[in-house]
Amino acid sequence: MIIQHMDKFMRAAIDEALQGRKEGGIPIGSVLRRGEEIVSRGHNKRVQELDPIAHGEMDALRNAGRQRTYRDTVLYTTLMPCYMCAGTIVQFKIPKVVVGEAQTFGESQAFLESHGVEVEILNLPECVQMMQDFIRDEPTLWNEDIMEL
Amino acid sequence: MIIQHMDKFMRAAIDEALQGRKEGGIPIGSVLRRGEEIVSRGHNKRVQELDPIAHGEMDALRNAGRQRTYRDTVLYTTLMPCYMCAGTIVQFKIPKVVVGEAQTFGESQAFLESHGVEVEILNLPECVQMMQDFIRDEPTLWNEDIMEL
Repeated sequence: MIIQHMDKFMRAAIDEALQGRKEGGIPIGSVLRRGEEIVSRGHNKRVQELDPIAHGEMDALRNAGRQRTYRDTVLYTTLMPCYMCAGTIVQFKIPKVVVGEAQTFGESQAFLESHGVEVEILNLPECVQMMQDFIRDEPTLWNEDIMEL
Repeated sequence: MIIQHMDKFMRAAIDEALQGRKEGGIPIGSVLRRGEEIVSRGHNKRVQELDPIAHGEMDALRNAGRQRTYRDTVLYTTLMPCYMCAGTIVQFKIPKVVVGEAQTFGESQAFLESHGVEVEILNLPECVQMMQDFIRDEPTLWNEDIMEL
C-alpha cells in the first residue's frame, strides 16, 4: 500500500474532522477546492445538529451555497464517501474526489468511477487512526451513522 | 401509461411542493412515512436557504432527525429522485420510494432497483403539470438545481 502525501486541502479536511470530534461528533471532515482556493469546509454534524444528512461532504457542499458549476472543483474527504455523498458527487458533477482513507469504510468507489469520477485514495495513517479510535470509543454512534444498527 | 391513485402521503408531498413554489422555490416535496404516520415532510429549499443539498427528499430526512432505522419507512416524493437523493435512500436502507412522476426528470431508477429499493411510479398528472409549469417559468433555476447549467 502506497501512502501518499497530504496537501493543505486534506490537512484542512482532517482539521475539520478533529473539530467535529471535539464537539462530541463523528470525526469526518471535508473541503471543496477550486484551483488553489478552499471554497468551503465542513464536518459531520449528526450529533451536533441532530441531522442525519449532515455528513462531512454534505456539510461542505451546503456551506458552499449555490454554485454555478462544480466541474472545476475537487472534493476532499477524510473517509471514503458513503452512497449518499457519492450520489451527491455524481449529481453535482464533481469530477474528482480525494479520500484520506478507505480502510475503515467505503463501498462507493466503483459507483463513483462508473460515473466518471476520479477517486484518489491517499491511505493516510492519521485518517485511519482517527476512525479506529472513534469506532472503538463510540461503536453505537458509528453504526447509527452508517445505518447498520 | 397507468395513472394510479394518490394517498394522503403523496397528497402531503404535493402540498409541500406547492408550498415551496409559493415561497419562490422549486416545487418538489417529500414525506417520510412509517405505518400510517407521517414521520416528517419537506420541500426543496435551494432558493429559500441558499442550500444546494436541500432537495425535497433530503429536507424531509433532515426534518426527521436521528432515526434508529429506516427499514420500516417509505419515502414519498413528487419527482423521481436525483442521484443525491437516490444514494441517500440506498445508504439509509429505505426499502421503498413512491414517486409522483418520472417524466420530467429521473435517471436513478435502475440504480435504486439494483440496490433492492422498490420504486413505485404513480404517473400523476398534477405532478407532471407542476414541474412543466415550473420549468417553463424558471428554466435557469431548474437547470441549476439539476446541475445542467
